[in-house]
Amino acid sequence: MFDGAIQDLIDELSLLPGVGPKSAQRIAFHLLEADAEDINRLTSALNAVKTKVTHCEICGNLAEAQLCSICQDERRDRTVICVVEQAQDIQAIERTHAYRGLYHVLGGAIDPMRGIGPDQLRIRGLLSRLTDGSVTEVVIATDPNIEGEATATYLARMLESVSVPASRLALGLPVGGDLEYADEVTLGRAFEGRRRV
Amino acid sequence: MFDGAIQDLIDELSLLPGVGPKSAQRIAFHLLEADAEDINRLTSALNAVKTKVTHCEICGNLAEAQLCSICQDERRDRTVICVVEQAQDIQAIERTHAYRGLYHVLGGAIDPMRGIGPDQLRIRGLLSRLTDGSVTEVVIATDPNIEGEATATYLARMLESVSVPASRLALGLPVGGDLEYADEVTLGRAFEGRRRV
Repeated sequence: MFDGAIQDLIDELSLLPGVGPKSAQRIAFHLLEADAEDINRLTSALNAVKTKVTHCEICGNLAEAQLCSICQDERRDRTVICVVEQAQDIQAIERTHAYRGLYHVLGGAIDPMRGIGPDQLRIRGLLSRLTDGSVTEVVIATDPNIEGEATATYLARMLESVSVPASRLALGLPVGGDLEYADEVTLGRAFEGRRRV
Repeated sequence: MFDGAIQDLIDELSLLPGVGPKSAQRIAFHLLEADAEDINRLTSALNAVKTKVTHCEICGNLAEAQLCSICQDERRDRTVICVVEQAQDIQAIERTHAYRGLYHVLGGAIDPMRGIGPDQLRIRGLLSRLTDGSVTEVVIATDPNIEGEATATYLARMLESVSVPASRLALGLPVGGDLEYADEVTLGRAFEGRRRV
């Protein structure tokens, strides 16, 4: 549709998640009008993320050193490990300020349809963190979907076999939502998990 | 929220039009998982667009040479010039295959609130293209909003003063739309512009 370089940029931008051809075009024309300095900042940010960011050797969280900022933090409670599917989940939990323990990133969930079994996840690394007996609870915080539930069940059994107490995040109504619009599975789980007041 | 390089990239991506903090985060994590080669293609496309793309010396369209592909094309009808606000508008018109003449990009519309008057637009360049008398019609295709209408009125008067016939794109119901949901201004214009069948 457009000439050479512009179309190349639109094509590259269209490959990004959530960016369709229209948004790609809009972004490309925005960048065309932008200062060369703005473009340089963007390209160096892109390059930096690839060269600087690695995974924490202990928990698999994103890190710019051998260990991530959470594993390095002496004030964190080292007796609890929260298991999540991906590094982004850690940020979501950190925002709640409800948890002060450590994390472990699995790198996905068990999904036989896509050929992902326990061996493809960072489960061995989790087990080795539990051997010295200092961890007294593992909170399983996988996604509340089929793959996440399967992974949670697998982990719960495994943790039982090594005698480490496991817990699972509560399922129920989202705060601020309307009971009327809750789907029946969520509402069913909210009933199952009801608590005395 | 995140550590250094990742957060830098998220911040830079958030500056792009139509990309909010959530999408920026999603794109950043996507790029983190992407091959180094994919990132290189994106950064070189970004750099290329800034170094290669300029504006056509005649019409102001985007070009990778002195003249854009349309001004270079011998098969275009050189007796008609279509005036648009920005280069993107040319692509929208080209997609219709309804027009085979040349273009002229104003680089915006008259907007006193933002300090844009006729002198800030490429109007002098348009006038100089009309002096040799070869152009027999100017189609005014500015946006159908207040600034576009003001610009169209200004251009129509100016073209009258140099005795070049001007026309304006029709206003009316969008094809495929519902009459029931048309706004009253559009419907009013559709009545004004009604044609015998």
